[in-house]
Amino acid sequence: MVIVMKPEATKEEIDLIINRIEGAGLKAHVVEGEFQTIIGVIGDKKLISSQPFETYSGVDKKVGISASFKLVSRGFKAENTVIDVDGIKIGDGSLVVMAGPCAVESQEQILEAARIAKEGGAQFLRGGAYKPRTSPYAFQGLEEEGLKYLAAAREATGLKVITEVTDVETVELVASYADVLQIGARNMQNFKLLRAVGRTNRPVMLKRGLSATMDEWLNAAEYIMSEGNHNVIFCERGIRTYETYTRNTLDLAAIGILKHLSHLPVVVDPSHGTGKWRLVKPMAMAAVAAGTDGIMVEMHPHPEEALSDGAQSLNPEHYLDMMRSITKLKAFLVEADLL
Amino acid sequence: MVIVMKPEATKEEIDLIINRIEGAGLKAHVVEGEFQTIIGVIGDKKLISSQPFETYSGVDKKVGISASFKLVSRGFKAENTVIDVDGIKIGDGSLVVMAGPCAVESQEQILEAARIAKEGGAQFLRGGAYKPRTSPYAFQGLEEEGLKYLAAAREATGLKVITEVTDVETVELVASYADVLQIGARNMQNFKLLRAVGRTNRPVMLKRGLSATMDEWLNAAEYIMSEGNHNVIFCERGIRTYETYTRNTLDLAAIGILKHLSHLPVVVDPSHGTGKWRLVKPMAMAAVAAGTDGIMVEMHPHPEEALSDGAQSLNPEHYLDMMRSITKLKAFLVEADLL
Amino acid sequence: MVIVMKPEATKEEIDLIINRIEGAGLKAHVVEGEFQTIIGVIGDKKLISSQPFETYSGVDKKVGISASFKLVSRGFKAENTVIDVDGIKIGDGSLVVMAGPCAVESQEQILEAARIAKEGGAQFLRGGAYKPRTSPYAFQGLEEEGLKYLAAAREATGLKVITEVTDVETVELVASYADVLQIGARNMQNFKLLRAVGRTNRPVMLKRGLSATMDEWLNAAEYIMSEGNHNVIFCERGIRTYETYTRNTLDLAAIGILKHLSHLPVVVDPSHGTGKWRLVKPMAMAAVAAGTDGIMVEMHPHPEEALSDGAQSLNPEHYLDMMRSITKLKAFLVEADLL
Amino acid sequence: MVIVMKPEATKEEIDLIINRIEGAGLKAHVVEGEFQTIIGVIGDKKLISSQPFETYSGVDKKVGISASFKLVSRGFKAENTVIDVDGIKIGDGSLVVMAGPCAVESQEQILEAARIAKEGGAQFLRGGAYKPRTSPYAFQGLEEEGLKYLAAAREATGLKVITEVTDVETVELVASYADVLQIGARNMQNFKLLRAVGRTNRPVMLKRGLSATMDEWLNAAEYIMSEGNHNVIFCERGIRTYETYTRNTLDLAAIGILKHLSHLPVVVDPSHGTGKWRLVKPMAMAAVAAGTDGIMVEMHPHPEEALSDGAQSLNPEHYLDMMRSITKLKAFLVEADLL
Repeated sequence: MVIVMKPEATKEEIDLIINRIEGAGLKAHVVEGEFQTIIGVIGDKKLISSQPFETYSGVDKKVGISASFKLVSRGFKAENTVIDVDGIKIGDGSLVVMAGPCAVESQEQILEAARIAKEGGAQFLRGGAYKPRTSPYAFQGLEEEGLKYLAAAREATGLKVITEVTDVETVELVASYADVLQIGARNMQNFKLLRAVGRTNRPVMLKRGLSATMDEWLNAAEYIMSEGNHNVIFCERGIRTYETYTRNTLDLAAIGILKHLSHLPVVVDPSHGTGKWRLVKPMAMAAVAAGTDGIMVEMHPHPEEALSDGAQSLNPEHYLDMMRSITKLKAFLVEADLL
Repeated sequence: MVIVMKPEATKEEIDLIINRIEGAGLKAHVVEGEFQTIIGVIGDKKLISSQPFETYSGVDKKVGISASFKLVSRGFKAENTVIDVDGIKIGDGSLVVMAGPCAVESQEQILEAARIAKEGGAQFLRGGAYKPRTSPYAFQGLEEEGLKYLAAAREATGLKVITEVTDVETVELVASYADVLQIGARNMQNFKLLRAVGRTNRPVMLKRGLSATMDEWLNAAEYIMSEGNHNVIFCERGIRTYETYTRNTLDLAAIGILKHLSHLPVVVDPSHGTGKWRLVKPMAMAAVAAGTDGIMVEMHPHPEEALSDGAQSLNPEHYLDMMRSITKLKAFLVEADLL
Repeated sequence: MVIVMKPEATKEEIDLIINRIEGAGLKAHVVEGEFQTIIGVIGDKKLISSQPFETYSGVDKKVGISASFKLVSRGFKAENTVIDVDGIKIGDGSLVVMAGPCAVESQEQILEAARIAKEGGAQFLRGGAYKPRTSPYAFQGLEEEGLKYLAAAREATGLKVITEVTDVETVELVASYADVLQIGARNMQNFKLLRAVGRTNRPVMLKRGLSATMDEWLNAAEYIMSEGNHNVIFCERGIRTYETYTRNTLDLAAIGILKHLSHLPVVVDPSHGTGKWRLVKPMAMAAVAAGTDGIMVEMHPHPEEALSDGAQSLNPEHYLDMMRSITKLKAFLVEADLL
Repeated sequence: MVIVMKPEATKEEIDLIINRIEGAGLKAHVVEGEFQTIIGVIGDKKLISSQPFETYSGVDKKVGISASFKLVSRGFKAENTVIDVDGIKIGDGSLVVMAGPCAVESQEQILEAARIAKEGGAQFLRGGAYKPRTSPYAFQGLEEEGLKYLAAAREATGLKVITEVTDVETVELVASYADVLQIGARNMQNFKLLRAVGRTNRPVMLKRGLSATMDEWLNAAEYIMSEGNHNVIFCERGIRTYETYTRNTLDLAAIGILKHLSHLPVVVDPSHGTGKWRLVKPMAMAAVAAGTDGIMVEMHPHPEEALSDGAQSLNPEHYLDMMRSITKLKAFLVEADLL
C-alpha cells in the first residue's frame, strides 16, 4: 500500500504516520516528492488493510497495490485449472455448452429441452428449480420437484445437470441432484452461501454480480476456495450500465482479464448478457473467438409459452443454428491454433 | 402493458398477438398508429407478465405500465407508516439518528461509542456484529459476542440497538438482541433472508442494493411485507456509479421518490453514501432538508484505530458538531413548516 | 406515444388530456384498463414530442414508442450501406482495418507506423493530428503539420487516411487531407460539428459517446445524414461503467443492435474499448466473430516512447500477430458462411 | 506517480524502468516490498505523464498521485473566488437563483417568466436561445432572436441573463447579450469552446458532463482559466447512472468535494438533476443545506405549453413556493452559522 500525504502535510504529521506504521509491526519507506511525500507500507497485507490511515490529518489518500485474493490467482497456480465433471472437462481448451430453459416448468418441458440441447451438442442441461425473482408474486420455481425432473432428463439423455442454489438450507439437497452448482448474480456476495458450496464436493459456477468489480468477483471465488472446494468456474453474464436497449452489458473483456489474473475457467452467458434472443448468437460467436471455455444459453422448446425470460430464450431452430456455428468456429480456432 | 408492433408487422402477425392475448383470458385494445400498431393488454397483472410477447415475430417491444409491488405502495395505504420502537417513533415527522461504529470491536469500544452517541442526541446505537466483507480474510465481526456487547451498551445508555443480520440461520438470534434488524446492501435481493425477517416481529431497515433500481428496492420491501411484517424502513446508502472520488453516489432524490410511491419511512446513510468523513456532515444536512426520517452515521471513538471503514467514520468531535447542526436544522424546518 | 394516466385520475383529467391531444391536431385512442387508463397518441412525431403531457395532474407518465431517427434506420433503407473510399469498401461483408498510433508525433514515426500497418494488411492509417485531451497541459497534437505527415505516409504506402476533426473551423482543412473524417467520443453530441461534417463529401466515422445510448448515437448519425452526407460509419469504442480494471467497457452487442436498427457499417475499436494492449487481440477476434465491418486499432512502432495512450498500443510484433489471426478468422467465417 | 512492478519482475526489468525514469530527467525512488517492488517517480508532472511506463514487461500498473489541474485548485488559491456580475455576487456566502424556462419561446413567454422569476427573488433569468437537442428534428431554439428577447426581459426587470453558448462561432454574439455564459453538459469537453469562452470577459458557468469525473470537470475549468478567464462557476446537474426513475442522478456530494478541491463557486440544477418537477423543491432544499452557492431552476409560466422539458419545469405557483422555502432556509443557515 502507498500512503499519499497532502502537499501541506507537516513533518509532525508525516512522522506520526511513520510511527503508526512501525507501531503496527510494518515497515515504512518514505519517498519525498517535489510537491508531496508518499510512504510505501510493507508487511502483512491483513495488518495493513485494517489500518485506517486516511483518517489522519496529513494524509491525502491511500492507494492499494496488491490484490486481496490468493488461491484464485495465477500467481498462486500458474497452470490452468481443468474441472472434470464425470468425464466432461471444463477449462482444457475445449468448449462446453450448457443449454436449457430459464426455469424448469414441467417434466415434459425439461425432457423436450434436454433432447434438443443434446441434439445440438451441449454437454450440460441447465434449468432453474429455485428462481430468485424481483417480485414476490412472480413464479418462484418448482423446487425439489424441478430437481427430480432435471435428474430424470439427465437419466434420459446423458447430459450433466447444472442448476442454481439460492440458499444455505438447500445446498445439500441441490448438490444431491446437480452435477454443477450455480451461484446466481444476486448471490455473488452472499458469503454464507459461498462458504456452504465451498464445503461441498460439487464444482461451482459463480455468476458475476450485477455491478461486481473484477476484484469483488475474484474475492467471491476466494470465499469458495478458502473452504476447500477448488473447482470454481466464472460466468460472465453482463453488468448493469446506463444502457437500456439491452438487459445488461456483456463484458467480454472479462474473459481475457480472468485468464490473466486467475487459473480458473470462464463461461459466458449471452442470454442474460443481452436479454434479447436476436443478440445471443453473435455474442456467443464473439465469446468463443475471445477464448471462453464455455457458453451457457437459454433455450426453450416453446419460448412463446415460457414462464420467465421468454424474450431472451432461443427457440430450437435458432439454438441448433447457433450450435452449428459455434461448433464450427471452435473447431477452426483450435485447428488454426488461434486461441 | 402495451405491446408495440413493428412498423412492418403484417395483419396476420397482429391477429396472432390478439388471439394469444385473448386466449390467455386477457383483453386486447388495438390502436393503429400512422407508422405502427400498438396493443394495450388489460387484465390480471400476473397473467400478463408471464406472457413472453416479445418472442413473436411481429413484435417490436413490450412496455410495462403498472408497478409489480402492492403492499409498499402509497396507493395501497395513503397515510405514512409510523414505526414505534419501544416509544421511539420513525416516520412521524421527527428525526431519528442511528450512530455508532461500523463494527463492534470490544465491550469498551461499543460502550464508549454508545455514550458519545447518546450525548449527541442519537436514539439508536448501530454497530455490526456480523460483517459481510469482500475478502474472506478480512475481519468478519465478533458475532454473538458482539450482540452481547450491544445489549450491554443499550442497558447502560437506554439507546435502542440496530444491527445487521446476514443470514437466515442467525435471524432469531440477532432478533433476540436487536431492536431493529438491518438488511445490508449486498443482501437486498437475498430473498430467503427477506422472507425470514418478514416472519419476525422486529422492524427491518432495508438498505438499497449497490445497483438497485427503485422498482427492485420497493419489491424487496414487498417480500418482507408479504410475510406479515409491515414495519419496514428504507435506507438510502449510495449507488455504484462510474465516479470513483466517492465510495458511492448518494442518491438523495430517493427520499422524495420513496415518499411519493410508498408510505414507509426513509433513512439516509451519508457515511457509506460518500465513504469520506469530510462529506458526511454536508450530506446529512442535505438529507434532513430533503425530508429524511432519519440519519444513520458511522462514528468511532477512535477512528484511527477502527478495524473497518475508518476513513468514513466521524470522530466524536465531528459527530457532536454534526448532531448540533442537524438538530438545529430539523427544529427550524419543523417550526417554519418547511417539510 | 402512449400516455399512462394515474389510477386515481378523474374523468375530467382524462378528458382534458384528450382535448389537449386533439387540440394539437393529433388523434387520441383511449384504452380503459382495470386499474388505469392509457391513451395512445397518433400523428406527427414532432408535434407529439413537443407536448409536455406529463405536467398534467392526472398523468402518471408518457412512454415513447417510435424512434426519433429516420434516415439512419433500417426501416428507411433495407439494404446495407456500402461506403466506397477510393476503391476500399466498408460494409460490403469484408473486413477493413484502420491501424496506427494514437497521435502523429513525427514524420518518421508515422511513416514507420504506416509501413507496419500496411505490412499487416490494414487498408487505413489512423493517427491524430488534433488531440482532445482531458488536461489543457497535455500534448494536443501537431495540427496541420501532422496532417501533412499523414498525407506523406499515404503517398508512400497507398493506405487511406482516417483522422479526427475536433472543431468546425478545421473541418475543411482536415477534409482536404483525410480520406475519412473521425468524430471522437467527446464530440458525439457536438451538433454543430456533426452538421459541418455532414456538409462535406468525406465519409465520417462517428465514435460512440462515453455514455451515449443507442438512441442518442443513432440520432447523432441522423444529424450528419440530415445535411446530405449519407456515408456514416459507427465506431463502438467502449462505454463508461463502474468497472475500473479496463479503461472502458467494450459493448460488442452494439454490432448486432446497430445492424438490426440501421443500414450503416459498424467498426470496433478494442484499443480504447479496453485500454490495455493485452486485451486488444481477444476483443478484436470477438468483434470479427460478432460481425463487425472493421477494426480500428492503436499500433505504435515504439509504444514505450508514445506521447499518449502507450499502454493500449500494440507494438509491431503484437500487431502483426493480431492481423494474422483476424485475417484468418474473417476468411474462415466468410468461407463457412457464418456471418 | 507510483509504478507498481509485477511480483515476478526481474532485476533487469526493474533496472530498465529506473534507467528510463532517470533518462527522462526524473528521479526514481525504489521501495522493495515483500511481494513486489514499487517505484516512486518524482519530477515535472508533464514529463512524467507522457511516459507510458505500463508498456514495459515487468510493470503491473502505474498509479497517479497528484492532480493534473492547477489554477482551479484550492492549493493554488486558498480563499474562495467571489464572482461579481454587475453587483450580484456569486460565491460570497449568499445564495443566487437562476430561474426561467428551458428555452426562450417568445417575447411574451420570456417576459412573463422574468417577472415571475423576479417576484420569487431570483437574481438571474435563464433561458436557452441555442438548444442542443438529441434529435436534429427537435426545436433548436430561436437563436439571436431569443437573445434579444432575453435582453429585453433584463431591461424590463433588472435581472441578469445567463444563457447557453453552444459553439465557437457564436461566443462573441452570445457574450454581447448575456451576463454569464453557460457551457452545457454535452459541451463540457468541447475544448475549443472552453478556450473560446476563456478568452471572453464574461463569467462562465460550466455544467458537469453526463459522465464526467471530478478530475475531468476540474480540468475542463482549467481549460477556461488557462486562457485568462478566472470567473468560472461549476454547475452540478446530475450524472448518468443505471437508475431510470429520474432523468439523471443528482450528485450533491459534488458541492463538498468541489469546495474542498477548488476555490470556485458551485451552483446546483435540480431540474435537470431529477427531470421531475415534484423532486425539484426537495433537492433544492438539500443543495442549500449542503452549502451550494446557487440554484438554477427551470420555471415556465405555462409548463403544459413548454416546447421542451415541460415535465421538469416548475409552474409559477410551485416556483414561488420553492423560493419562499429556500430563502427562509438560507437565512436560517446563515444566522445560525451552520454553513
